[in-house]
Amino acid sequence: MPNTTASPFRLAQRCTLMNPSILREILKVTERPDIISLAGGLPSAALFPVEAIRDAAHRVLSTQPGEALQYAPSEGFGPLREWIAARLQAAGMAVEPGRILVTNGSQQALDLVARVMIDAGAPVLVESPTYLGALQAFTPFEPRFRMLAADDAGPLPEALAEPGYPANDRARFAYLIPDFQNPTGRSIPAPRRQALARAAIASNAVIVEDNPYGELWYDEAPPRPIAASAPAHTLYLGSLSKVLAPGLRLGYLVAPPVLYPKLLQAKQAADLHTAGLPQRIAADVLGAGLLDVHLPRVREHYRVRRDAMARSLATHMGDLADWTVPAGGMFFWVRLRVPLDTLALLEAAVVAGVAFVPGRPFYGDGITPVAAEPARDEPVADADRTMRLSFVTVTPEAIDDAINRLAGVIRQRLEATGIPAKARAAESTC
Amino acid sequence: MPNTTASPFRLAQRCTLMNPSILREILKVTERPDIISLAGGLPSAALFPVEAIRDAAHRVLSTQPGEALQYAPSEGFGPLREWIAARLQAAGMAVEPGRILVTNGSQQALDLVARVMIDAGAPVLVESPTYLGALQAFTPFEPRFRMLAADDAGPLPEALAEPGYPANDRARFAYLIPDFQNPTGRSIPAPRRQALARAAIASNAVIVEDNPYGELWYDEAPPRPIAASAPAHTLYLGSLSKVLAPGLRLGYLVAPPVLYPKLLQAKQAADLHTAGLPQRIAADVLGAGLLDVHLPRVREHYRVRRDAMARSLATHMGDLADWTVPAGGMFFWVRLRVPLDTLALLEAAVVAGVAFVPGRPFYGDGITPVAAEPARDEPVADADRTMRLSFVTVTPEAIDDAINRLAGVIRQRLEATGIPAKARAAESTC
Repeated sequence: MPNTTASPFRLAQRCTLMNPSILREILKVTERPDIISLAGGLPSAALFPVEAIRDAAHRVLSTQPGEALQYAPSEGFGPLREWIAARLQAAGMAVEPGRILVTNGSQQALDLVARVMIDAGAPVLVESPTYLGALQAFTPFEPRFRMLAADDAGPLPEALAEPGYPANDRARFAYLIPDFQNPTGRSIPAPRRQALARAAIASNAVIVEDNPYGELWYDEAPPRPIAASAPAHTLYLGSLSKVLAPGLRLGYLVAPPVLYPKLLQAKQAADLHTAGLPQRIAADVLGAGLLDVHLPRVREHYRVRRDAMARSLATHMGDLADWTVPAGGMFFWVRLRVPLDTLALLEAAVVAGVAFVPGRPFYGDGITPVAAEPARDEPVADADRTMRLSFVTVTPEAIDDAINRLAGVIRQRLEATGIPAKARAAESTC
Repeated sequence: MPNTTASPFRLAQRCTLMNPSILREILKVTERPDIISLAGGLPSAALFPVEAIRDAAHRVLSTQPGEALQYAPSEGFGPLREWIAARLQAAGMAVEPGRILVTNGSQQALDLVARVMIDAGAPVLVESPTYLGALQAFTPFEPRFRMLAADDAGPLPEALAEPGYPANDRARFAYLIPDFQNPTGRSIPAPRRQALARAAIASNAVIVEDNPYGELWYDEAPPRPIAASAPAHTLYLGSLSKVLAPGLRLGYLVAPPVLYPKLLQAKQAADLHTAGLPQRIAADVLGAGLLDVHLPRVREHYRVRRDAMARSLATHMGDLADWTVPAGGMFFWVRLRVPLDTLALLEAAVVAGVAFVPGRPFYGDGITPVAAEPARDEPVADADRTMRLSFVTVTPEAIDDAINRLAGVIRQRLEATGIPAKARAAESTC
């Protein structure tokens, strides 16, 4: 007799690697309305170009309803691909529309890249810390993650050649976010980008260059993408989530001709095509030049908040932590000088009415560290002292209030645990 | 020196299984405007509820723009999930909204099912012929396809227990389209559905029940889904593509609580969530009762064309082929009585101004046939004599013209190849 009370569903092996996102669980806790949240990764809804999108939706559904509501090409809507190509050309990349594949947000682009390039057990190079969503997209395809050696300017070019690993165990690709990385806010300077491009070509390595934040610069435009200097060795991923609105769910990837057909087949297998209506709405507003007026407004709005957070951190936490002021993007990456675990700190912070994201999850699980890295003998590891603070959805006043409360919680905790004040001065401010 | 002229991209093993869809290539050829196409699988754009969708888009972007354009829950938009649950409850299924996952069309639902249940080499049971898009969704996860033994009423219940295969080589699931199957148009009668549900429970087998066409019935509503009788042993997939519009790209799956969390994690890894704007537009028009007036109109429009094709086939091809009149859906499945290969016939048909889809691709490649099936000694195999004819986007007059031309092409080919007229009378009409 078969055991009919047992679940009839037999799960694929990859399911054991798929787990609820720690970050997602943390964000749930911090969504209470009485909390000032610096934990979010969402752009500010106050900045969505609602009127332009509403007008475009009406126009599209009046002039081309049959096409907008019918099945659509897997490659994406032609005029949208043309606009994206022109935008990238203006940024220094030689890209034809035929190399662009429109995706359901850049998360799907990460999934498609993994589908066509990751076998179970194949190595993939990632920064640590890095974007959690990318690890989540790659993981079902069962790669082995290896850490990319890095310094303050970003990953080391020589790390792309994977010294210490045999040629038959080369990584399928290295995953990078050169502009205003999530979570660290770090931007790779131009000389390092060129060195990474040269190293990829020299060692025939592949770089997956993820660029969701590039348009959100507050001081000056970031350097040209790595893909501009190594087009045959890069997959470039972009997104309209931060420049228009995430709810349209539009991302894209730029692939060399040798890889494009396989990515297209993967897209067809995954969901046939991206929804036509949002694509046509986006093509309408972008083609009309919306970003010329919209992006300066977004940048100014975020710059004010970035500056506010920089001031508040200096005022309230100058003796407690180190950080660098990000030149763009959405996040400050803060490292406590004092030996406190930020995950343990979060609960008290939430009680005090402020939320952040502890840094530990961004370091990933099971990433093989670079061999040369020395083990440190510290009461609280570096990664556990970090936290990510978002400044984009909060007013300058609320930012100051939140940072002040957060500093208060840290000081309380220090006193409660009896850590001597001199511990605070043990390291210098950056 | 590394060989820098070689492609740096090393493809995953699964890529060797991913190939351009034959069907897609055929459809490209047949899209010329001078051709009457019975090849399409698209619903008629003339029937899209454009005004209702345009009004809903305006309403959504006026009353809830921030929410519609922001990141959204991976599970789907709450009110849309509630509407879907209520609709399925009315069809006899005991479904709570919490068991519904909104997807980018039901193609993505197929992909998610494959992700969480298919390991490389794991068996999966499919009908033959079956929906090509499902084979395409499952294939990247490298299953072994086995054919489900079937008769005219559909798959045999005893086939779910996989007699002849050891217990440790059980299929992960059986994939079925009970209502108006693509390509055959066949609908599984109520007693067979109940027998399949009982067999799934008795042998602790899983049925993936795909139902994109269920609302497109022209005579009477189809029997209750198999999922209504075996909720713990089924995954049920639905779509709004045929009842509203494909361009909204909205499908869904209904999963038992034991499997739902893994499917949700797979969705998060794949693309975080389905676009919010189309979901809210759909919830708006569906919640207002659009289908009460819209579906009768769609059914009447398609019924007229279904009846026209039945008449035209009887008039022009009664002596050449067999078919059954589908009780719903979009397709006639026609089998030539004469030994002609429909793939070879297509070119001449296109010259004569009519296009169809040859049936062979729907039989899949590499599906292990049922052991008992005898090999036939025929000049042209059964599968090569079949073709799929869509009636939904063509007027009754054009349908008659197209079937007449198609019959002419078949007769010409018969004369050219010298096949004696008596071959036509060798089998009886069904």
